[in-house]
Amino acid sequence: MTFIPKDPNFEQRVRASFDLQTVNQTLGCELLSVGPGTCVIRLPHNPALCQQHGYLHAGITTTIADTAAGYAAYSLMPPNSEVVSVEFKINLMAPAVGEVFEARAKVDRPGRSLTVVRSEVVAITDGKETTVALMQATMICLPGAADKTA
Amino acid sequence: MTFIPKDPNFEQRVRASFDLQTVNQTLGCELLSVGPGTCVIRLPHNPALCQQHGYLHAGITTTIADTAAGYAAYSLMPPNSEVVSVEFKINLMAPAVGEVFEARAKVDRPGRSLTVVRSEVVAITDGKETTVALMQATMICLPGAADKTA
Amino acid sequence: MTFIPKDPNFEQRVRASFDLQTVNQTLGCELLSVGPGTCVIRLPHNPALCQQHGYLHAGITTTIADTAAGYAAYSLMPPNSEVVSVEFKINLMAPAVGEVFEARAKVDRPGRSLTVVRSEVVAITDGKETTVALMQATMICLPGAADKTA
Amino acid sequence: MTFIPKDPNFEQRVRASFDLQTVNQTLGCELLSVGPGTCVIRLPHNPALCQQHGYLHAGITTTIADTAAGYAAYSLMPPNSEVVSVEFKINLMAPAVGEVFEARAKVDRPGRSLTVVRSEVVAITDGKETTVALMQATMICLPGAADKTA
Repeated sequence: MTFIPKDPNFEQRVRASFDLQTVNQTLGCELLSVGPGTCVIRLPHNPALCQQHGYLHAGITTTIADTAAGYAAYSLMPPNSEVVSVEFKINLMAPAVGEVFEARAKVDRPGRSLTVVRSEVVAITDGKETTVALMQATMICLPGAADKTA
Repeated sequence: MTFIPKDPNFEQRVRASFDLQTVNQTLGCELLSVGPGTCVIRLPHNPALCQQHGYLHAGITTTIADTAAGYAAYSLMPPNSEVVSVEFKINLMAPAVGEVFEARAKVDRPGRSLTVVRSEVVAITDGKETTVALMQATMICLPGAADKTA
Repeated sequence: MTFIPKDPNFEQRVRASFDLQTVNQTLGCELLSVGPGTCVIRLPHNPALCQQHGYLHAGITTTIADTAAGYAAYSLMPPNSEVVSVEFKINLMAPAVGEVFEARAKVDRPGRSLTVVRSEVVAITDGKETTVALMQATMICLPGAADKTA
Repeated sequence: MTFIPKDPNFEQRVRASFDLQTVNQTLGCELLSVGPGTCVIRLPHNPALCQQHGYLHAGITTTIADTAAGYAAYSLMPPNSEVVSVEFKINLMAPAVGEVFEARAKVDRPGRSLTVVRSEVVAITDGKETTVALMQATMICLPGAADKTA
């Protein structure tokens, strides 16, 4: 399914928002790509972000899945808008072990208010990929700062 | 509902596992308390863990909710066991703004293999609490290291 | 937590909506009670609604949990409004075996647009209760017919 | 992704289990097809299964999504096994209006114990399809009757 963005400058808007998220720099997340209804977030393995068995903590796996899902949804929202996560569900399907992790999100159904997105997290080692988590999320579009002061 | 722990040393076991999670020190999480089927994780506000509006990132809110849920479940598991998150769903109900955040988890149904837990995240400012997120999670009990090498 | 309904006639409104749901008569569901932010739906065991082991089918368990959750939310919505399920997650915790089933829902956070509700399904036999399922749901308030034709 | 079934007679086993679910005949569900890791359930529109606006009730939409998900998972399980739903999450994305509904499920990750499945429900009118719901589910494989008596 292909989506037509309402905002031709969606990539710039998404990247500006991503840069405002301090958690991304703290964890080492990179916004690899954003398209109309898609987004990929990358996080290199970091031994400081693990759970008790040395795997990436489920909460950190979730963090990149959520960020990718939010920006996939945000790419289809109008210029003066904000995106916030309403809720999500994630299955942790395999130990999060790898050199690098990528969260790849894709909008399933964009809505004026609510957007449904799925996000998959893969662990990559020597170019070989393993899916470690699967998220289904609901994002909401809020009128942005410009609208609110209008 | 009250639960009888199978392991009288559950607190020591939970605390040892918590200390092995490097993410806790990195983010600044503290294990406030653990009881039979309950656990509280505390995280002071940190401007380095925020999303684009300056609220705690949903993934970090989720991280403490998941850690609390996992250890609430783990408190009821037998001595030589491991706990891993199978899946969870979380609703982000209010902006995560506060001086400190607490994730409070409580087991709903412990099982030999699967345990259902609910975890609530509250933001606290000047002693006043606001619920910011609600999680429903499934945890699995795996045979531990001692069993695996046996 | 106690909620003040915006509509003093909420019970009448909820019951009228429940009566419009043809599925309730088909399955044999009864609206046992509705309060501000709460609702209880009752379904006697019916061998025609089972899965392969003779338990109530998870989808039917979910149906009463969803109906209870929707009307718990709807009780707090304004007079000219409609309620629709956005999404829900349910854990099936024990075989749904009993003489009668009750879904008991309670609003966690009412919102102008979105309301978060939890719903618990219990199986009752000889007055003894077993929790068989736990739902966490998001409901949305839509402007009602009166508003739409205005 | 293609899966190799452990049981060459999986279709016969799935169909036998489907026929034991009394809810299917009661609601009018048909098992359209089952493959290795896939299943399609069909339900013609029925005015007796609706919610207050005349749409298919979310619980009934969920019932066919769950049945499809369960049997997609069951198709990959060994001969003497049973399948039970652990939990699922479903987004209701559009009003369930149509002449017929189909739930199409596909396994994402089969496991010895737990299997993750996604199920999509489409409404079909005049051959035109609309996705009305999206489910992400966890199924569990239990030793079957034959094993239990062994």
